This record gives sequence, structure tokens and C-alpha cells, in this order.
Amino acid sequence: MTQPDTLRGIGESATLARIFPRLPQSDHALVGPGDDSAVMSAPDSRFVVTTDMMIHGPDFRLAWSAPHDLGWKAAASNLADVAAMGATPTALVVAIAAPADSPVSLLEGIADGLRDACLALAPGCGVVGGDLSVSDTLTIAVTAFGDLSGRAPVLRSGARPGDVVAVSGALGRAAAGLALLFERGTVDGQPDASAAASLRASDPDLVAAQLAPTPPIADGVLAAQAGATAMLDLSDGLALDARRIAQASGVALSLDAAAIGSREALDGGEDHSLLATFPPGTSLPGGFRAIGTVVAGSGLLVDGQHYEERGGWDPYEQWSGGRG
Amino acid sequence: MTQPDTLRGIGESATLARIFPRLPQSDHALVGPGDDSAVMSAPDSRFVVTTDMMIHGPDFRLAWSAPHDLGWKAAASNLADVAAMGATPTALVVAIAAPADSPVSLLEGIADGLRDACLALAPGCGVVGGDLSVSDTLTIAVTAFGDLSGRAPVLRSGARPGDVVAVSGALGRAAAGLALLFERGTVDGQPDASAAASLRASDPDLVAAQLAPTPPIADGVLAAQAGATAMLDLSDGLALDARRIAQASGVALSLDAAAIGSREALDGGEDHSLLATFPPGTSLPGGFRAIGTVVAGSGLLVDGQHYEERGGWDPYEQWSGGRG
Repeated sequence: MTQPDTLRGIGESATLARIFPRLPQSDHALVGPGDDSAVMSAPDSRFVVTTDMMIHGPDFRLAWSAPHDLGWKAAASNLADVAAMGATPTALVVAIAAPADSPVSLLEGIADGLRDACLALAPGCGVVGGDLSVSDTLTIAVTAFGDLSGRAPVLRSGARPGDVVAVSGALGRAAAGLALLFERGTVDGQPDASAAASLRASDPDLVAAQLAPTPPIADGVLAAQAGATAMLDLSDGLALDARRIAQASGVALSLDAAAIGSREALDGGEDHSLLATFPPGTSLPGGFRAIGTVVAGSGLLVDGQHYEERGGWDPYEQWSGGRG
Repeated sequence: MTQPDTLRGIGESATLARIFPRLPQSDHALVGPGDDSAVMSAPDSRFVVTTDMMIHGPDFRLAWSAPHDLGWKAAASNLADVAAMGATPTALVVAIAAPADSPVSLLEGIADGLRDACLALAPGCGVVGGDLSVSDTLTIAVTAFGDLSGRAPVLRSGARPGDVVAVSGALGRAAAGLALLFERGTVDGQPDASAAASLRASDPDLVAAQLAPTPPIADGVLAAQAGATAMLDLSDGLALDARRIAQASGVALSLDAAAIGSREALDGGEDHSLLATFPPGTSLPGGFRAIGTVVAGSGLLVDGQHYEERGGWDPYEQWSGGRG
């Protein structure tokens, strides 16, 4: 049996040559990859930018995530931050550091996942630059760009009493998928690839919600066009992120438990769905559905009661140190 | 003796609150940090973007680099890639992953270094966004942006026979500093902080050239204004990077050994100086000095002889795995 090529075995230049053709091209690049920098078009003289890193251990387990999942999720989570401003994603730059003994197929799979997520979630968005490096810890750092097409960005601070609170995308599914993986995707407490494969077969939707989420990227622009007053992407769970809009806007968000569904839907992170507020009477665009209203006050109410659960996840305090 | 605060001890929010006030502000930010994305101004409807990562082990040793050095070098190396397009750096986004037991002062020092490098090398450039995470391997990923003020970007592909080859900034100094650190900055083969402190006292310039380089960022715009036909930043050494201009432009670069100085100046990487070509007769701007001419052919000539040394550094093939 031949051994698979490793990064150390073929080196940086040959690795780049194998990854490069897999990456999606950007419709908005004036100068693409290959020079010291890329040059991007910014038609309305502004651009939106966000950055987010995924780290082996706290953010993913290699026994659970396929390389394609990693590229997909790295793209999707950053695209959601662009969409949450009401912008159309235009491009990514991607820095990846991997152990030298990794198979080249790891990086090929990540590149394929980046491409497929861009094609599916934000057509026209492509990779315009990057950096490959070596590290004991597989690390994927993505920076994403977006175009506002002349509109004002939708900030967290614009919610007003009387506005409708609405969400587009899943609530609590990514957290439910993660709980399932920790419950039935381990052997002797360690993440296990065979167990995860069984779960992919038995519970494909929940597992995919965690490993390769499909946030409603196009609904970000639709929300802005419909007059959204505030918006963010749900990375730390509805409860914590709703409080962020409340605090930035100097209001309270009052949510309806029945419209939300489960407790997991309130506290579970990583859905990368869009939470937005709209002026009363707005016909909600795309996949948005009403889950409450903005009221005077502060913080978060659920069925009229203040909801104080902390939610979220602190990487420094809460990562167990496990990888697998 | 009180123990220093660690990231795990105070958590992500408190860490952010301590770093945030130290970061430089960008003169070009319309919406700064704190929302899902930043919004940047791009006055001529384009922006320049580049990304580069620094990893504990292959890229730096904590026994040698102070936190301030790490922030400085992460900024400087990315600013040089923006300058090499003939652009003015406008902003950075910075993702940092650090072990949970790191002292908070590590991140404070990195933030101070980012700020001081921006102030010294590219005033008006600031940090507009970022991401903090946890990792077994300290990792700093920077993405930098620049403004071309209506000019065409200076690519690697524009050199023409007859052009003057010129360089601004140090040649081989960063590599000489690294050689010195490996030679006299170790104890029993391991990077050692006391030995490095002695070297900082005895050879401050060489050590700084490696740990906190000062590339001539402003000369990038001056070169573009003077009509530079090609330009790049010297990250892999003069020989390898000169060949890159030669290949992209379909020409040969013929360099004068006496003008270059030493062999280390040809092969040593990480200076982040600017290598550019100018039409014959150009009055060389800023710190640029002539070191050769562009001729028909391919590859690199030194004193008329083809120079074939490979140069550069492959992270996958050449990193020893050492950290320290």
C-alpha cells in the first residue's frame, strides 16, 4: 500500500499547486492571488471585513470533522458575519497552519469545503489570497469581505421599541448536533471517527448542523433591503446574542418561548443564523420568522420574564484541553 | 508574590477589555471593532488585502521574542506586503490564539507591539477587528489592507529590460540576527532568554532586525509615484524574490555583488525590505539604491553569472519541530 503524500514530503510549493486550482474565484477581484497582495473592487467606496479562526481542539475534532467540513464551516461562519451587516460576501483570504506530517488531502479537502460553501451560500465569493504555514495545531484563519451596494450597514445598535424581533435559520441545531457527538460519537470518552460515521447515517441533519452549517447568507441583504434596524449572526446562542442587540441598542428584547421552541434553541451556539429587528408592520423577507418584539428596558425577556442564563462559551475558561 | 493574571483566570471578555484600549485606531474605519464586521472606507473603490500568520515554533521562539516584538513583527511583515503594491496601509484585522495558561500580559504586549509598529511605520493604520481564541500553539494571524489613491497597483510582472533594479531597506540583516540567536542565544541547544538578553545588549541592531524589523513602508508609495514597474517585499531573501520578479515579468535580473554586499544579503530572508524596478533614468525615491539592471533572459545573474542557489525556507520540509 502506498503512503499518502504528506506536506513535509512534497513541500510548500507543490502543496500550493495542488490546492490552488480547487479554490473558488471571486467575481470582485481586480488582482487575484499570486502577488504580495490582492486588489479587490469596492464599488461603493466601502468594504465590510470580519475575521474568525478555527483551532483544532476547542473548535473542532479531527475524528468528527472531515476536511471538507472544516473548510465549509470556516467559510460559512465568516460569511454569516458579513451577511449580518446586510452585505453581500465578495471574497475570503485564508491562512492555514497544519502539522508537517498531515496528508496533503487534508488541505485539499479544506480547499474543497471552502469552495463548495462559497458556491452554495454566496456565489461570486472566492478566495483571493492566503498563507500556508506549519504548526503543531491545525489552525484555519479566515478573513471575509463584503459589499454593501450603497446601503448603510445594519449594526447591532438600531433596534427600537415596537420593532419585531425575527430570526432566519436554525435555532439550537448546531448545539444539539454537538451534544449528540459528545454523547454518542466517542469511545472511552475520546472523539471517535467510526462512532461519528454512524451518527452521520442515523442523524445526518443534526450532525451537519454542527459540522457544516448552512446559514441563510442571502437573507442578510434581504433584511437590509427590508429595512432591518439591527442584525447579528447567532454564534453564541440566541439568549446571549439577543442581549448584545439589547445592550447595543439600549432596549430590551422580549421573546416568545413558543416561537423559539426549545431551551436548546435559546442557549445553543454556532447556528450562525441571523437575528434581526424590523420596524413594526414590515413584511418579513426571505426565511425570517417573528419570535418577539423590542420593548423599553434592558436585557432579555422570555414570555415576559427576565432571562438571566449566561449562555455562550469562553474558550479560555471552558476548553477541556481535549483534541482528538 | 502574586501570580500574574492568566487568560483562563480572567476569561475572554476581561481579556478583551484589557487589550482593546491598547490597539491603534484606523483613520479609515467607518465602523470599527465591536459589531459582526467592521466597515472600511475605500476612497478609490478598490482595496489592497494580504494575510500572513506567525506560529510559535517555526516563526518565533518565546525565549527570544518579547510579546511586543511579536505584535511589531506581525504588523510589520503584513504592512510590507501592502507597501509592496504601492499602497498606503489603512487597517489590520488580527486573530490571536494562545494557550489558556498564558499571562494576560502576553496579549497586552502583542497589542502594544501592533500599535507601536503601526504608529512608527504606517501612521493612520489601525486595528479594526479581530478574534481571540485558545490554542496549544500561540498563533497570530494578521490581514492588512491598503489604499492605492487611484494609482495602478505595482505588480511583480512589470519589469522591462533596461529598468534599474533597486532596493530600499536592509539586506540580510534579519537572517544575520537569526544566525546570531541560534549561535549564541541558546543553552544546550535550546533558545534561552538570558542569552538573548545578552545579545540584545551586545548586538541590538542585528537582534532587532530579526525580532522587530523596520521595513521602509512609506517607500512603497514613493516607488509607485516614481513609476516603479515591478515591486515585492523581500520575505524569502533577495535571490529567491528577485527570481520571482524575473519569472513574473519574463526577464532576468542582473545584480551587482558589490552593491549587494554579502552572501547573507543575497540569501537571507525576513528583511521585508522592498525590491523594485524603475525605468532607466528614474531618480530613485526615498531609501532606494540601485543594485542592478533588468536584462533579457530569465532567472537571476550576479556579476554576470547565473546564480542558482535555491534560497528561501520551506516550513514543511525545514522546520525542526523546535519551539522554546
